[in-house]
Amino acid sequence: MNLALIGTGRMGAPIARNLLRAGHQLTVYNRSRAKAEPLAADGALISHSPAEAARGREAVLTVLADDAAVEQAVLGDDGAAAGLEPGAIHISCSTISTVLARRLTEEHLRRGQNYPSVPVFGRPQAAEAKTLLVVPAGPAPIIERCRPVFDAIGRQTFVAGAEPWQANALKLGGNFMIAGMLESFSEAFAAMRKAGISPHLFLDVMNALFASPVYAGYGRLVADERFEPAGFALKLGLKDIRLMLETAHELAAPMPFASVIRDQLLAAMAIGLAESDWSSVSRISARNAGL
Amino acid sequence: MNLALIGTGRMGAPIARNLLRAGHQLTVYNRSRAKAEPLAADGALISHSPAEAARGREAVLTVLADDAAVEQAVLGDDGAAAGLEPGAIHISCSTISTVLARRLTEEHLRRGQNYPSVPVFGRPQAAEAKTLLVVPAGPAPIIERCRPVFDAIGRQTFVAGAEPWQANALKLGGNFMIAGMLESFSEAFAAMRKAGISPHLFLDVMNALFASPVYAGYGRLVADERFEPAGFALKLGLKDIRLMLETAHELAAPMPFASVIRDQLLAAMAIGLAESDWSSVSRISARNAGL
Amino acid sequence: MNLALIGTGRMGAPIARNLLRAGHQLTVYNRSRAKAEPLAADGALISHSPAEAARGREAVLTVLADDAAVEQAVLGDDGAAAGLEPGAIHISCSTISTVLARRLTEEHLRRGQNYPSVPVFGRPQAAEAKTLLVVPAGPAPIIERCRPVFDAIGRQTFVAGAEPWQANALKLGGNFMIAGMLESFSEAFAAMRKAGISPHLFLDVMNALFASPVYAGYGRLVADERFEPAGFALKLGLKDIRLMLETAHELAAPMPFASVIRDQLLAAMAIGLAESDWSSVSRISARNAGL
Amino acid sequence: MNLALIGTGRMGAPIARNLLRAGHQLTVYNRSRAKAEPLAADGALISHSPAEAARGREAVLTVLADDAAVEQAVLGDDGAAAGLEPGAIHISCSTISTVLARRLTEEHLRRGQNYPSVPVFGRPQAAEAKTLLVVPAGPAPIIERCRPVFDAIGRQTFVAGAEPWQANALKLGGNFMIAGMLESFSEAFAAMRKAGISPHLFLDVMNALFASPVYAGYGRLVADERFEPAGFALKLGLKDIRLMLETAHELAAPMPFASVIRDQLLAAMAIGLAESDWSSVSRISARNAGL
Repeated sequence: MNLALIGTGRMGAPIARNLLRAGHQLTVYNRSRAKAEPLAADGALISHSPAEAARGREAVLTVLADDAAVEQAVLGDDGAAAGLEPGAIHISCSTISTVLARRLTEEHLRRGQNYPSVPVFGRPQAAEAKTLLVVPAGPAPIIERCRPVFDAIGRQTFVAGAEPWQANALKLGGNFMIAGMLESFSEAFAAMRKAGISPHLFLDVMNALFASPVYAGYGRLVADERFEPAGFALKLGLKDIRLMLETAHELAAPMPFASVIRDQLLAAMAIGLAESDWSSVSRISARNAGL
Repeated sequence: MNLALIGTGRMGAPIARNLLRAGHQLTVYNRSRAKAEPLAADGALISHSPAEAARGREAVLTVLADDAAVEQAVLGDDGAAAGLEPGAIHISCSTISTVLARRLTEEHLRRGQNYPSVPVFGRPQAAEAKTLLVVPAGPAPIIERCRPVFDAIGRQTFVAGAEPWQANALKLGGNFMIAGMLESFSEAFAAMRKAGISPHLFLDVMNALFASPVYAGYGRLVADERFEPAGFALKLGLKDIRLMLETAHELAAPMPFASVIRDQLLAAMAIGLAESDWSSVSRISARNAGL
Repeated sequence: MNLALIGTGRMGAPIARNLLRAGHQLTVYNRSRAKAEPLAADGALISHSPAEAARGREAVLTVLADDAAVEQAVLGDDGAAAGLEPGAIHISCSTISTVLARRLTEEHLRRGQNYPSVPVFGRPQAAEAKTLLVVPAGPAPIIERCRPVFDAIGRQTFVAGAEPWQANALKLGGNFMIAGMLESFSEAFAAMRKAGISPHLFLDVMNALFASPVYAGYGRLVADERFEPAGFALKLGLKDIRLMLETAHELAAPMPFASVIRDQLLAAMAIGLAESDWSSVSRISARNAGL
Repeated sequence: MNLALIGTGRMGAPIARNLLRAGHQLTVYNRSRAKAEPLAADGALISHSPAEAARGREAVLTVLADDAAVEQAVLGDDGAAAGLEPGAIHISCSTISTVLARRLTEEHLRRGQNYPSVPVFGRPQAAEAKTLLVVPAGPAPIIERCRPVFDAIGRQTFVAGAEPWQANALKLGGNFMIAGMLESFSEAFAAMRKAGISPHLFLDVMNALFASPVYAGYGRLVADERFEPAGFALKLGLKDIRLMLETAHELAAPMPFASVIRDQLLAAMAIGLAESDWSSVSRISARNAGL
């Protein structure tokens, strides 16, 4: 396919490389051009604006940090929406709000363009290893047209529904599950430490019990208190939980765990952990236990 | 070893059979004798009281439901403590409070007996399959003497510390981790359902993400809303979370997630789910979302 | 003073009457004109648009339900900002977000207009009785110019700070305090009822203890379960708690009580209590206790 | 009446003086005799044991700190129960658990003695000023026989029910209401401070709004951060919230606010505030906001 990709950061760059490896034609754009240029060596064309990148492509992917970045890159001046032809597709891979997903649905519809939300699960290493979980939602025929893209970047695809925002809701739910595990570990580790039980021992038992690589990975970060460099910055984790709570608000579905997580992340922000890995939220449980 | 086992219920019976299979001599006692008798066919002797069962054995295991049952069977009239010789060992496999664990430590010490706490992780099927995780705590030489028992009943042993109550704290921490996962699922499923996303689809993605048999097993119970027959009764789950909170209280370690779980389990009790599987706590999130 | 007032609803109408009684000239505007017309009999001029109402006045008050209404009436087509002369004042009495307060500050500054936030505490009866608490924030000289307005509508004035949004933060904090009392009552009443203690008896003791008219008033609503007609609709209460949480987010100040309240109000929304008085949040505690 | 009073601490001593002033005969006992002796000057007899103090009296009051103290003084060796004649009355004024209240009911019944629970609301100054709120529960004829006592020590009496433990439940509910106000203040003050709003200003507005001496008193403690000397020690406050949660557990009534309060008090314990006034729980909200 003839594709464009906007946002060649820690997630976007490896996704771009996998698209090129799969034989797709690819034009890339990044706000700071320096981050896009290395992809030229892999065969990507470098573009000067989202609109230019999108012009003439079958589909444009956006892989950006948050609502503001997506809004700017798609609906702003020289945004991708201005470049995309009618009938072309905007594949939005970012973890954005369900509100923005609905707005993008409408804006693209108005322009005769197609919009599936396609958030992905996985850290940068998973993007590199082509083991992302890909969660598209949107009209079935559009999803089918995008299959070659999904196959090129992930190991498994789960269709969340016919409404694009449903994929974003599902993605936020998944991040909430991870945050729930993090907070559980945080509280348990604090209690164990006060009981004179080593966090690493507790983690060994939990690994034997849950047998989950996600528990092993995050549990280790918390047990080791190794929060820098951040794999996923705490402020971004807070953003996602906030979006989950906003979606829960729209849906009138109370989520008391999500509320607790939000408060703990906020306390972590207040003591300066915004840029640390979000597993550093465990510092709050430790502090509140007098550790 | 020449052993006794008190409490031949859903966990105790398969543990007893595994001890017999490993070649240990075994005398068993159960309050309702009918539940003990089938074990005679496997080679167990049946006893008339905990004291009688314990008399002359190197070690007696207790596999009972809660503090009250253990207190009665060990320290009550004709209790195991009255039968055990000095130097013999009481291996307490039940999920009991850290308070009772400390009291048993003292009571046995006073009698010249040895007391390790040895809670286990796993449901009845795991007990049957000899795949329990065994978590002993107590003086190292006593733990070593009991190794043949641990090897006969579980797949892996983790020594929690030199103080018996530490094993109970660790076990409560592990059950808290499972409850944390349950409540996370409960809230996420409720939100997903209101977003028109099938719980089974969400579960498929979570299974791909966490790759944990515990998530797969419990997630399915919640997604299927199949809460009877109970694998682990909600009232026992509440008991464990309550014990975790009491231990957290002793340790001055706040656990806001545990508090939320307690409140949700209590709401589930209030609408009559005491005997259902504790995964039915998900009904509260569903109800509070108007489902 | 030569004033305008936009929004002659349950709060705006009595405020308008008090301004007229105090001898101010007043032009009023309301989206549905019928609600504004009765004020003509009290001496108000009726206007066709916010811009027209504002034109030539020393100050325009807005008394509206939420952010959207204020944004529309002030910054929308024919909005008050378009009518106000440079040097004139926009007195915003609505309970709005700190975000919108800051935006209004900028927008008016850009136009050479003055903007104090002046939220008030009190229900419609208090507005009628001129017993509102008036909480202005903004540059001191502007606050002083508005004193005659504050004196005309309330019984006491508290200056919250030099930044307009501070008044909104204070107002949200006050509504949070009331919601905290409501949730406390809700939980206590549910427990008392299950203990066979009449809510009215409990309320009598609390009245003797707190000796607060706010406790007496709200406590009675909850004890009587008299939630219609709504003095203050639950959906508006939820809006305010949500705004408080957003402000707490900006400030990085975790508020676990506010989180609980939000979840309880959301559960109340989910079972259809949006238009009931916000004291009906007590139904959730009752339900979760199986009542 | 011919009375005894056990426990002449900060609450018991002024209560004893008021009983003497009202013309009752009074024998007192205190574990550390030095605290009882000043009452001799007011006309009290000093006793050597609870049993001796109780012997021959129509009624014995206990005014003690917690369950353990009451259990010891009443049911321990030389306890009051051993001294009281059949038909005599034990008036228990302490804030104890509903579990102990029920146990005392049974123990006294077995001995042919009468047991009303009669907790009181008010700090030591209120006891001195005879302005306590008296909350008896028990069989109506017994309550009536005790009226002269209630009239001598408080300003108002509220009968909670026919079951003694109901008075304890009501008292715990009242303390929960106060704790709820404290936590509300704590969170609001933290947010206000981060918004640059003085706690004293916020308190002024809340005083104008709630017009409650309880808000004024506690609000000032928090705003002034004046936590020593403790009017009511934080560890006792935690004890009461814990008892409230245990009673809520018995009743299957979830109380999420009580859970939050417990966690905050626990965090305060963890940083060494056990002996400070319980209003110092506000330090936790401040800390978690990075203040």
